Amino acid sequence: MTEVIIAGIGQTNVGEHWDTGLRDLAHAAIHDALQDAGGLKPQALFVGNMLAPNLSRQAHLGALLADYSGLLGIEAVTVEAAGASGGAALRQGYLAVASGFVDAALVVGVEKMTDQVGAGVDEALATAADADFESVQGLTPTAQAALLMKRYMHEYAVPADGFAGFALTAHANGAGNPHAMFRKAIKPETYAKAEMVSEPLNLFDIAPNADGAAALLLTRRDLLPSHFSHPLVKVAGSASASDTLALHDRKDLLYFDTAQLSAGKAMKQVGLTLDGIDFFEYHDAFSVYAALQLEAVGFAIKGSGWKLAAENAIGLKGKIPCATLGGMKARGFAGGASGVYQAVEAAIQLRGQAGANQIANAKIGLIQSLGGPASTAVSHILQRVD
Amino acid sequence: MTEVIIAGIGQTNVGEHWDTGLRDLAHAAIHDALQDAGGLKPQALFVGNMLAPNLSRQAHLGALLADYSGLLGIEAVTVEAAGASGGAALRQGYLAVASGFVDAALVVGVEKMTDQVGAGVDEALATAADADFESVQGLTPTAQAALLMKRYMHEYAVPADGFAGFALTAHANGAGNPHAMFRKAIKPETYAKAEMVSEPLNLFDIAPNADGAAALLLTRRDLLPSHFSHPLVKVAGSASASDTLALHDRKDLLYFDTAQLSAGKAMKQVGLTLDGIDFFEYHDAFSVYAALQLEAVGFAIKGSGWKLAAENAIGLKGKIPCATLGGMKARGFAGGASGVYQAVEAAIQLRGQAGANQIANAKIGLIQSLGGPASTAVSHILQRVD
Repeated sequence: MTEVIIAGIGQTNVGEHWDTGLRDLAHAAIHDALQDAGGLKPQALFVGNMLAPNLSRQAHLGALLADYSGLLGIEAVTVEAAGASGGAALRQGYLAVASGFVDAALVVGVEKMTDQVGAGVDEALATAADADFESVQGLTPTAQAALLMKRYMHEYAVPADGFAGFALTAHANGAGNPHAMFRKAIKPETYAKAEMVSEPLNLFDIAPNADGAAALLLTRRDLLPSHFSHPLVKVAGSASASDTLALHDRKDLLYFDTAQLSAGKAMKQVGLTLDGIDFFEYHDAFSVYAALQLEAVGFAIKGSGWKLAAENAIGLKGKIPCATLGGMKARGFAGGASGVYQAVEAAIQLRGQAGANQIANAKIGLIQSLGGPASTAVSHILQRVD
Repeated sequence: MTEVIIAGIGQTNVGEHWDTGLRDLAHAAIHDALQDAGGLKPQALFVGNMLAPNLSRQAHLGALLADYSGLLGIEAVTVEAAGASGGAALRQGYLAVASGFVDAALVVGVEKMTDQVGAGVDEALATAADADFESVQGLTPTAQAALLMKRYMHEYAVPADGFAGFALTAHANGAGNPHAMFRKAIKPETYAKAEMVSEPLNLFDIAPNADGAAALLLTRRDLLPSHFSHPLVKVAGSASASDTLALHDRKDLLYFDTAQLSAGKAMKQVGLTLDGIDFFEYHDAFSVYAALQLEAVGFAIKGSGWKLAAENAIGLKGKIPCATLGGMKARGFAGGASGVYQAVEAAIQLRGQAGANQIANAKIGLIQSLGGPASTAVSHILQRVD
């Protein structure tokens, strides 16, 4: 298998871009990634997007963004797996380069959630759930997460502010990320006083919907331009797994099988144990997801993922730093773009470009992108190559 | 590159399935493809779908269909490129097997256009066009095709019934396909008297919207079960290309660059000239698309694609048989499933199982799946391996 290097990265700020359309966001990130890669040209484009067909009445983003980014003619498709679309697009781009099918692949995640010409955001996000058995009843992803959190708190006797640590860490880290939507640390009182959205989920258990785009250029090491000067980061492991969409079909509500399966496969590809992972970018669309991912991957035993956050073991200097540039909670949740943001941020850490948020000696990062309540999980291991 | 064999095929009838949902259609086709493959199990699922997020409020079909088809846990994603979604899903499945990433890949194309809980069909189909510059003005794919056809007829002085041959051939062939939506030949008078939909497009220039699912199991030759008894068909060539979504951005309105580019690349991979192609499954969502594809691929010179139909050179015994099992016009247009239907039908021809519609000594077929007016084109060459 060919070694796959992240030659270029780009991202827009995450937030409410009222004056910038879907294609412009994508173009900005693509432009930066191509520049960062020193002018390398891709032969294929993989777009991670979930909501544009509903919210912007725009499907067919592959051809649209190839054209709009000056890459007219190249192969281009959209890869969709709900919230895991970005991770899934990265995986297809990785496979295209690793297999030798293309010399260079461009991966872009893009989502525009503020402007809506079609369905509303909640209705569009609910397409990630089972339409015939869940969303038809009005169950949204937020309500799904509330059910999970309620059960989790009941089973494991978690106190009311037990999940606060996830938001505290995310916002503390967001403060150091110039691209983040929220760049201010919060206090425990802020979490404790936050408005309830869907009990027991409060406003700070939920990542904010946002617009944004992130892009990666992947290629082989021998094709890097001679003047390429970034520290080398490779995609060392990649795996994906699926589970039921509907929560009621799960064997165990409180275990994310796909998070375990995909992370385990990716780690096996690298020959890695948990000790070798320097940081973990989880998919904290909801705080309970973060807890369940920490448990499924193995950083905590079942029922104790929330304690890692409560004990600040997920902070920048903790046992396993998470959401190192703010995660979805503070960087912002740009739907199907999220998995590509994770990869861009992990590359920044591994290049040593994370500034105040830099993890000391970061060599290996695990990123995990989820669709629905881990109905899809896509895991990648990024590694600095010395 | 590993040889990729089509080990199993399955398809539902194409039509109005008022009693069958999206997941049931997909499952029926998947079930048949897995059976046909003698029990081989796939490790990855690639879903070709365009409209479910809009029409059925259901995204995330990868995980949903993996679960619903008894394949819980496997890697699964949706691949979207508007009407070319089926062809694009086939290409990702092909790459997964050809590269050795998986032993067996399942490709399913599924679309459900009759039931609509969200947007209407025209609005949903219009997401294939440029939302900011075309569909926002009310330009639907049908209106786009009418503009193309009008210009084509003007430039090349085509008579009013010049395109009739496409519908006549499709319906003649549909009569021999038990899965086709329309199984009756039509007369030239039927075309001549047909209601105008968007001048100069009449009802018989437009493929009918339909529900349906088709599936393929792809694997390596050495993994075929020992009792496998079908004639072997391989995916010999595969390529994809992109163009502008908006018609007004084209250099030449009347030339499908991507159809030329993708077919040319796929043929080069096989070392094939046009003479070697025994039949051509084009993407006849509109008759003018068929004419333009015949020209772009090289079967006719520019401006004369319609004559091949008028002279019946595209009939089962013609110079280049097209739409051999009815094409989109008579088999029915199941949106993003279409490209997989093409592959299933080509496999039927190459296995010699096409009954009354059998092309004598069919060894090599070219199939081409389009998104929008060839904003995306995905071409595959299927070949009988003796």
